[in-house]
Amino acid sequence: MEDAAEILLSRLIRNARVAALGTIRAEGPNVSMVAFIPKEDFSAFFILVSRLAQHTVDMRKDKHVSLLIAETDDARSDPQTLARVSIRGSAEAMIVGEPGYNPIKKMYLDRFPASAPLFELTDFSLWRIRARGGRFVAGFAKAYNITPETLQSASQR
Amino acid sequence: MEDAAEILLSRLIRNARVAALGTIRAEGPNVSMVAFIPKEDFSAFFILVSRLAQHTVDMRKDKHVSLLIAETDDARSDPQTLARVSIRGSAEAMIVGEPGYNPIKKMYLDRFPASAPLFELTDFSLWRIRARGGRFVAGFAKAYNITPETLQSASQR
Repeated sequence: MEDAAEILLSRLIRNARVAALGTIRAEGPNVSMVAFIPKEDFSAFFILVSRLAQHTVDMRKDKHVSLLIAETDDARSDPQTLARVSIRGSAEAMIVGEPGYNPIKKMYLDRFPASAPLFELTDFSLWRIRARGGRFVAGFAKAYNITPETLQSASQR
Repeated sequence: MEDAAEILLSRLIRNARVAALGTIRAEGPNVSMVAFIPKEDFSAFFILVSRLAQHTVDMRKDKHVSLLIAETDDARSDPQTLARVSIRGSAEAMIVGEPGYNPIKKMYLDRFPASAPLFELTDFSLWRIRARGGRFVAGFAKAYNITPETLQSASQR
């Protein structure tokens, strides 16, 4: 991927605060909105979800997920030119106290200070979505298949 | 659903230009960004997609889809309070010239004039997503299961 595209991908992932999370429900896909933070090297993405939420029930049954991070619609004439990346991944609940848990919690709270009370509730947990691959649309008719290596390379921009 | 929530749902659906489309791929869900227009009564949503795009390949194999319409992130302190609606639906390609095709095409072009050249390409088609139900999150910890009737009622606001 050329330099300009890598820089665009990196900015897209670092600037966005919310993503669309796709999970598998009984009959088909389900898409919900989540607040997220990326791991520094873009190998994983972290979300804080309630055990009672439908997407969490879905992820417990089937770990396959998809995360869409899209540029905010800025009212440009053609929204098809908005940059976006779909990341295919597998989701797993983090255990409080597991290696790496506290730095992720701190990073999440730095980004979303209003979420602090949720960490006090027993039904909220951090989940890790490991990136397996995906597709980056840098604008209309300009798309790239991406791998974990692409993401890692972009994270250094 | 109370009046204020219905009005919020109606504005959310009418103001948004892009949505996250969830489809089923071989191994799991896939989420991509689409520009959309709602039918006047919110019973269906229309998208213009390329036959070559991955989400179109998915929809040809499995018509079950999910459409997330989320309020634009306005940099508020807690993004979990953004309103959003997940709509479960079934997707079908429209046939050029079928009853209702021309009014939908006109409505799509009124909303997305930059898409006009795509209608000249043989690999782009309008698809209809019929709404089966869904979930509306009017802000954090304020959520409603919705039906086609809820959507129809909101469309009159």
